[in-house]
Amino acid sequence: MQLGLVGLGRMGFNMRERLRKAGHEVVGFDRNPDVTDSESLADLVGKLAAPRTVWVMVPAGDPTRDTVTELRDLLAEGDLVIDGGNSKYTEDAKNAAFLAEKGIRYLDVGVSGGVWGLDVGYGLMVGGDRADVDRAMPIFDALRPEGPREEGFAHAGPIGAGHYSKMVHNGIEYGLMQAYAEGFELLDTVDLVTDVPAVIRAWQRGTVVRSWLLDLLVRALDSDPELDDLRGYVEDSGEGRWTVAEAINHAVPAPVISAALFARFASRQEDSPAMRAVAALRNQFGGHAVHKV
Amino acid sequence: MQLGLVGLGRMGFNMRERLRKAGHEVVGFDRNPDVTDSESLADLVGKLAAPRTVWVMVPAGDPTRDTVTELRDLLAEGDLVIDGGNSKYTEDAKNAAFLAEKGIRYLDVGVSGGVWGLDVGYGLMVGGDRADVDRAMPIFDALRPEGPREEGFAHAGPIGAGHYSKMVHNGIEYGLMQAYAEGFELLDTVDLVTDVPAVIRAWQRGTVVRSWLLDLLVRALDSDPELDDLRGYVEDSGEGRWTVAEAINHAVPAPVISAALFARFASRQEDSPAMRAVAALRNQFGGHAVHKV
Amino acid sequence: MQLGLVGLGRMGFNMRERLRKAGHEVVGFDRNPDVTDSESLADLVGKLAAPRTVWVMVPAGDPTRDTVTELRDLLAEGDLVIDGGNSKYTEDAKNAAFLAEKGIRYLDVGVSGGVWGLDVGYGLMVGGDRADVDRAMPIFDALRPEGPREEGFAHAGPIGAGHYSKMVHNGIEYGLMQAYAEGFELLDTVDLVTDVPAVIRAWQRGTVVRSWLLDLLVRALDSDPELDDLRGYVEDSGEGRWTVAEAINHAVPAPVISAALFARFASRQEDSPAMRAVAALRNQFGGHAVHKV
Amino acid sequence: MQLGLVGLGRMGFNMRERLRKAGHEVVGFDRNPDVTDSESLADLVGKLAAPRTVWVMVPAGDPTRDTVTELRDLLAEGDLVIDGGNSKYTEDAKNAAFLAEKGIRYLDVGVSGGVWGLDVGYGLMVGGDRADVDRAMPIFDALRPEGPREEGFAHAGPIGAGHYSKMVHNGIEYGLMQAYAEGFELLDTVDLVTDVPAVIRAWQRGTVVRSWLLDLLVRALDSDPELDDLRGYVEDSGEGRWTVAEAINHAVPAPVISAALFARFASRQEDSPAMRAVAALRNQFGGHAVHKV
Repeated sequence: MQLGLVGLGRMGFNMRERLRKAGHEVVGFDRNPDVTDSESLADLVGKLAAPRTVWVMVPAGDPTRDTVTELRDLLAEGDLVIDGGNSKYTEDAKNAAFLAEKGIRYLDVGVSGGVWGLDVGYGLMVGGDRADVDRAMPIFDALRPEGPREEGFAHAGPIGAGHYSKMVHNGIEYGLMQAYAEGFELLDTVDLVTDVPAVIRAWQRGTVVRSWLLDLLVRALDSDPELDDLRGYVEDSGEGRWTVAEAINHAVPAPVISAALFARFASRQEDSPAMRAVAALRNQFGGHAVHKV
Repeated sequence: MQLGLVGLGRMGFNMRERLRKAGHEVVGFDRNPDVTDSESLADLVGKLAAPRTVWVMVPAGDPTRDTVTELRDLLAEGDLVIDGGNSKYTEDAKNAAFLAEKGIRYLDVGVSGGVWGLDVGYGLMVGGDRADVDRAMPIFDALRPEGPREEGFAHAGPIGAGHYSKMVHNGIEYGLMQAYAEGFELLDTVDLVTDVPAVIRAWQRGTVVRSWLLDLLVRALDSDPELDDLRGYVEDSGEGRWTVAEAINHAVPAPVISAALFARFASRQEDSPAMRAVAALRNQFGGHAVHKV
Repeated sequence: MQLGLVGLGRMGFNMRERLRKAGHEVVGFDRNPDVTDSESLADLVGKLAAPRTVWVMVPAGDPTRDTVTELRDLLAEGDLVIDGGNSKYTEDAKNAAFLAEKGIRYLDVGVSGGVWGLDVGYGLMVGGDRADVDRAMPIFDALRPEGPREEGFAHAGPIGAGHYSKMVHNGIEYGLMQAYAEGFELLDTVDLVTDVPAVIRAWQRGTVVRSWLLDLLVRALDSDPELDDLRGYVEDSGEGRWTVAEAINHAVPAPVISAALFARFASRQEDSPAMRAVAALRNQFGGHAVHKV
Repeated sequence: MQLGLVGLGRMGFNMRERLRKAGHEVVGFDRNPDVTDSESLADLVGKLAAPRTVWVMVPAGDPTRDTVTELRDLLAEGDLVIDGGNSKYTEDAKNAAFLAEKGIRYLDVGVSGGVWGLDVGYGLMVGGDRADVDRAMPIFDALRPEGPREEGFAHAGPIGAGHYSKMVHNGIEYGLMQAYAEGFELLDTVDLVTDVPAVIRAWQRGTVVRSWLLDLLVRALDSDPELDDLRGYVEDSGEGRWTVAEAINHAVPAPVISAALFARFASRQEDSPAMRAVAALRNQFGGHAVHKV
C-alpha cells in the first residue's frame, strides 16, 4: 500500500527501505535533502491518494507535536496518522483528540529493534481502534519480523497502549542490561575466571540467560575484549524514567528497573554531591580522612 | 567414551539420556533403584575401565562432599572426577587438593539449561587444567548444544572458575527475571494495556528484550494468562546469595542482582518485621493508624 | 498577632493551641462544629481585621485548592494566605498567581513535627517573598521549637521552596525509617542477640545512630517489645513518591529513598504479580515447584 | 578500678582520658612511645594486680588476634580480656574459647561515638556472661554517656552479641547517611531551593529527621556550604559489608543498607566496568554514541 513517512533518520530511513523491499510505495519526507522524497510535508501529502496514511517517525516531544499539528492542517477526514516515535503515552490521547476534530484517525506504535530492524524486522506494539489497526496491517506486516504475526506484533489496547507497552519494554531493557553488566563487572574483577569473553560467549546457547542482548554483548567483546576503548558513561532517553514514574504512580515496586536507571545517572556524574555529604559526615564523627578536591 | 554418572535426578537423568543418544557409554548410579545402573558407587567404579571419568551430579554441600570422599577411596591415580552440580566455587580447590593426594584429577563444571537441556543441550562452564578439559571434551561436546562449541562451552579458567562462572550466570538470571517481572506487574496493573499476554508475546521477535526467558514467560502466560494459579512465593537456591556476597567482597556494586534477591526474600515473608517497625514509627510520630494483627 | 486558621484536624488543632499559648489571637474554622471558632470561611474572614493572615491547614489536593479558591473571593488586596499543608510544591506557583490577581499575598510552609509539635514545636520551611515572611514571623516564632530560630525555621527560597524542602525532608524520613527497620529485622531474626529492645534502647546516647526517630522506636518497643501487635503494612502519603519523581526528573540517583518507598508498596500487597512471574519462570526452566493458590 | 588498655589510637587515647577523669587507674600500652604508659604488653600486665582486666582497642583482624594470643600467655586464670575494637562477631567465640583454655574470661564490646566519645561518652553494646559484665561495669559506666545506664549501654547477649549489635548499628548508619545525602543532593541540584544550608539547619529542631548525624551535616555545611572542598569518595570499613552478608545469610531483605554500601563502592570507581558494558550494549543495538577513552 501507499504510505507517507515523515522522518528519515536512523530509524525512519531503514524502515522506508524495509517497506519498499516488501513492495509498498513509500513517500518520505525529511529536512535532510539527501534522503527526502518530497520537498515539504505539504508536498508529501500531495503525493498521496486519499484516504492517506502518514507515519510520523521524528523525535518525541516538540518535533512530533509540531508534525502532528501541521499534518492536521494538511490531511482530511478519513486519513490516518501513525506516531511510531518514542513519544510519551500521555501524548497520544491529546494527538488523537486533536486530529479527531477533523475526522483524522490516529494510531500510536511502539517500535523496537534499533539498527537491526532493517534486516530482522521491528517488534511493534500498537494502540488504537481495531479498524485503524486492520487498515494499516500491511505496513505492520512488512515492518515486523518474519514468523507468526503475534510474536512480533501486538494490538496492545486503545490509544496510548502502544507507547505504554514500548515504555515498559524499555524499562525492562534497562534492568536486563544492568543485570548482565553487573555480572560482567564481577567476572572482570576477580582473578579466578581467566577468560571472561569465553564465558560470556558460552552463554549464548543452552543457558538460562541466553538472549539477543547477550549476543550483542558477545559482539562488543569480540571487538574489544575488555571493553576498555569506551567509558562507563550511559545516557538515558526517557522511557526508563517514565517507567519508574509510572510504577510509582501505581504503587508497583520497581527496585530493579529503578536501580538500573540510577546507575546510569551516577555514571554521568563527575563527582557525586551525595557522596560528598557522606564523606563529610564520616569525617565529622570519626575523623576519617576525606579526599580533597 | 565411557562415563560414570553419579546422581540421576532431574538433571542427571536427562544428561544420561543425552549422552547415550550421542553414543557414549554411561554407567549411572542413584539411590533410586528405578533409575540406577549400578548397585553402589563401588559397583559403578568397578564397571569402568581405567583411566575412569566419573561425573558427580548430586545436590551441592554434604551430598557432593560425601560422594567425592567416597570416590577418592574407590578411584585410582589418573582417574578424573567432574563435579557438575551447583557447588559453591570454594569447594573446588578443596576437592581438587583432596583428590590430588591420590593422583586423581578434578574438573568443576557449571551446567545451565534446566529441564530443557535434554533436547536443547546444556551450557557448560569448566574450571581446571587444559589436559583434563581436553580429555573430557567428548562428553562436553555431547552435552552442549548444537552449533559452534564456543557458544555453549567455555574453559573459564583454573579449578573453581567453572562454578564461579555459573554462580555469576545465576546472579544475572535473578536480575533478568526480576526485570521482566516488574514490567509484567506494571502492565498487569494499569488499565490502558488491555491485552498484556499479547504484548509480551509480541516481544519475542525483533525487540531488544527478546530472550529465552521471555519465551518461557510467554509459555507460562499461554497456560495461565494472569498467572493467578500460583502465588508470588519464590525460593532461592544459593547462587544468587553467593553472587551478592562475592560482589561485596570485591567492592563491586550489584544493586540490581541484590534487589532481585531481596525481592525473593520478601516474597516469602508472611509479615515483615522491618515494615512493622516502619508502621510503629509512623504511628509514634504522626498518629498514623496501624493495621493490628 | 491575629490569625485565621482553616482546618483543625490532628495538626491544625494542636497548632491553634500552641499559638494561643504564645499569646496570639487565632480564629479557627473547621467543618467539625465541635472544634470550630467560626461558622464558615466567610465568618472567619469577617472576624479578622485587615490586613488579614489566613493559614490553610487542610488535606493536600482538592480541599486545599477549594479553600484557596474560596479565600480569594473573601479576602482583599494586602491579605496573606499561608498554605501549611502537605501540598505538592507545584501547587504553590499556581496558588500564588491566582491570589496575586487580586493582590493577595501567598506563602507556602512545610511543617514537620507530627503530634509532638504541640509541645516541642514544629520545624518550618517557608517559600515566598522576604516581606511576607517577615510579616508572618510572629506566627512562625510561636510555632517553631524553642532555641535559635535558624535551627527550626528556614526561609528556603521563593514560592514553592517551602513545600519542596518539606517533600525532600519526608523522602529522607522514608530512608531513615527503613534503615532502622532493616537493622531491627536483622537483630530480630538472629538468635545471638538475645535482648533486642535493650540494644536499641542503648543506641539513644553516645552512638552515631542516635536520633529522634530512634527514640520513637524505643517508645514503640517499650509498649510492644516484639512489635507483634501490629502488621507490617505501611501507607505512603505522597511526599516520598514526589521526592523520587523529582530525583528522576533531575537525574539524581536516589537508590535508598526509592528502596524505602518500594518496600512500602510491597508491604501492602497481598500477593505480588511480579513474584508470580518469577515463580512461573523458575517453574518453566527448572521444573521448580510453585506455590499454588 | 584498675584497667589495662591496649591501643591508644584515635579511640583508645580518648577512652583512657575519659576513664581517668572518672577516677579509674588506667595502664595503657601502645607501640607509639609518645602515648604509652608501659614498655610492652608484658610490662602492662606486670603493672596490674590480679584479677586483671585488659581492654583491647586495636585494629580488627590480625592486630586484635595477635594481641589476644599474646595476652593469653601473659594473663592468668580469673583475668578478663575485653575486645572493644571493630572485630567481626565471628572472632569472639574463637577468642573466648581460646582464652577459656587458661581460665581467662572474655567480653566483646561494640563501641560507638567516634571522636566525640571523650566528651559525650560512648554507646556500648556488650556480649558475654552476666558476671563478667557486672565485674567490668565500673569501666562501662565511666565510658558510657551521662544519663540512665540503659540509654547508652546494653548487655546484648552471649559472647559475640556485642560486636553483632555494633555491626548492625553501623549498617543502619550507612543507610541513615545515604538517606540524608540523597536529600542533600536533590536540594543541591534544583534551583528552587535557594538556601540549602538554611533548610538543613532548620531540620535540627522539631522535625521528624532531626538526629545527631543531621547536626554533624550542619557542622560540615557551616564550614563548607557547598561541600565542594572535598570529593565524593567514600571508604567503607567492614561492618556495612558484614551487615549485608548477614542479612543475606538470614534471608532478611536489606535494600536500603545494601544500596548505601553499593553507593560507596561506586564512589571509589574511576570508571565502572558495568557501565562500560551498558554503554557497549546501547551502541550495539541502537547505534547510540559512546564516550571513548
